[in-house]
Amino acid sequence: MATLKQVAAHAEVSVQTVSNALNAPHRLRPDTLERVNRSIELLNYRPNRNARSLRTSAVELIGYCVPSWPNQTHLVMDQFLHALCAAAETSGRHILLFTAPAAVDGMPTYDDLHARRLVDGFVLSQTETHDPRHGWLKDRQIPFVSFGRVWKETTQPGPWVDVDGAAGSAMAVQHLHETGRRRIAFLGWPQSSGLGEDRLAGWRDRCTELGLPTGGLVVRCAEDTIDEGARATAQLIDSGQPPDGIVALSDILALGALRQLGDRGLTAGADVGVTGFDDSPRASVVSPGLTSLRQPMEQIATELIAILTGTRNDVPSERLLLPELVIRGSSAPG
Amino acid sequence: MATLKQVAAHAEVSVQTVSNALNAPHRLRPDTLERVNRSIELLNYRPNRNARSLRTSAVELIGYCVPSWPNQTHLVMDQFLHALCAAAETSGRHILLFTAPAAVDGMPTYDDLHARRLVDGFVLSQTETHDPRHGWLKDRQIPFVSFGRVWKETTQPGPWVDVDGAAGSAMAVQHLHETGRRRIAFLGWPQSSGLGEDRLAGWRDRCTELGLPTGGLVVRCAEDTIDEGARATAQLIDSGQPPDGIVALSDILALGALRQLGDRGLTAGADVGVTGFDDSPRASVVSPGLTSLRQPMEQIATELIAILTGTRNDVPSERLLLPELVIRGSSAPG
Repeated sequence: MATLKQVAAHAEVSVQTVSNALNAPHRLRPDTLERVNRSIELLNYRPNRNARSLRTSAVELIGYCVPSWPNQTHLVMDQFLHALCAAAETSGRHILLFTAPAAVDGMPTYDDLHARRLVDGFVLSQTETHDPRHGWLKDRQIPFVSFGRVWKETTQPGPWVDVDGAAGSAMAVQHLHETGRRRIAFLGWPQSSGLGEDRLAGWRDRCTELGLPTGGLVVRCAEDTIDEGARATAQLIDSGQPPDGIVALSDILALGALRQLGDRGLTAGADVGVTGFDDSPRASVVSPGLTSLRQPMEQIATELIAILTGTRNDVPSERLLLPELVIRGSSAPG
Repeated sequence: MATLKQVAAHAEVSVQTVSNALNAPHRLRPDTLERVNRSIELLNYRPNRNARSLRTSAVELIGYCVPSWPNQTHLVMDQFLHALCAAAETSGRHILLFTAPAAVDGMPTYDDLHARRLVDGFVLSQTETHDPRHGWLKDRQIPFVSFGRVWKETTQPGPWVDVDGAAGSAMAVQHLHETGRRRIAFLGWPQSSGLGEDRLAGWRDRCTELGLPTGGLVVRCAEDTIDEGARATAQLIDSGQPPDGIVALSDILALGALRQLGDRGLTAGADVGVTGFDDSPRASVVSPGLTSLRQPMEQIATELIAILTGTRNDVPSERLLLPELVIRGSSAPG
């Protein structure tokens, strides 16, 4: 590990100039700053991050990497971003948005933003199974908090806030049961999805607790598309023992179920109760309204910022929040 | 207008300390910074913005206000944000995301971010008719650029980049005409929308040039929803002279048209050619694929950043870009 002095010698500047490059880059001429930054990079110099806590800097920026691909499952990203900004601002901070390559290829971007003091820490989201980012940041003592657990890890690398998907599915089953359904199916994703398995487990456990059947009632969709949701629903209807309730892993799959029910002349709600997940904007405008599990975005964002900035002592560094069941026409009994 | 000296006297600090509060706030103790900022605010002190050009600061941040409401019409916001970040980073800058109240109520937030040097300028989007933000920023000489024109103004307040909606509609009409359609309808929005009137004009002009009828072929939808698109399509089909082509102002309305055609046993493409606007993620996953006009997001973002940062001399401060017609099954002739 290089020292400040070595960087200064390499860049042929004073130690103070290197310090300025790190702490007050606007005070340097652009060419000088570039030369120092090049030396910092070549020598892999890293300032002592522990010396500077999130609480002491005057204007704190929190980094958030904007997803690089349009993805149907991120229908609520704009809601999340707005909630995250609002929560950061409430605590006197701001969100710096950036792009980075996916997975471990993107980590040098995180490291660079932090080393240059552009940001004090990161909020991660869209956590994937075996996500490498969390461990990478933890190893380098770069502050972060994750919206979403790293699935299929025995211990979570670092602090997180997540929504209890299993509890959400159980709430959906409970609601459909209370509206008279006795054969409640589950539209899911491939087994590789930790989030999918979590929501599936909540459905299975609650069905078992209520004495409801589960055999032959799970259909795994290859993709999160309306077409796949419709296909899976057709498969259930054609199975000989059609369901009277469908818990879908996502609003998209639920919209596919609604479409298929319509195509078969069945009424969502009266004939088959349907629930989705995420309460995306479409859930309220589709006809009949889609009953869905809403992620408590404001609370999620507030907890993320509180954990990252360490401003509240009463916030544990792992927070599992309950979603809220928003009931609409698609689950209304006939 | 207060001077630096008056602020220093009011806060009982040196002029250098006030300067630090503005230019290197991390060098001050939090309580000192707070006291100076309070004096700055009370005395309404504003640093001379012209003295500091966008080009000379070491780390430049560009402010972008995240929309505060989930809105079906912003289906491509994540694409825009990603493109904007990538373009900013290419020029060594970053995007600072923030929240603000709508319209003129939000302007003090813009002013504060700029006065505190947190950002060097702003990118505006979701421009509305008579949008007050542009003139407000221009009056205060705060750098900005707008994605979208301010509709119904004789002169545009400040620089902008926009997509030529009239040309887009004309491209859609041309394409439907080339695939054999001779009665091409238009699904639009209420007259209050400048963007809507622009796209409508493009449809009308090209129909007229091609000798196609326009009478009775415009339906204005009250809202941008699938239901409204379906209702408008039903109205056209039931009019006695049904159309063989539909140019929809948005992908959402086009999806409504596709649904209604399906409900009537008509085939989108073979029976009625349909086009949308925005090439949102859904356009490619709906069955059959939706022909739609894609906004050139990367180009838009690059032009916005180039104008705002003044890095390219060949970029005029008003740029009207052509959308790209992405052809899919919904306009394929039978």
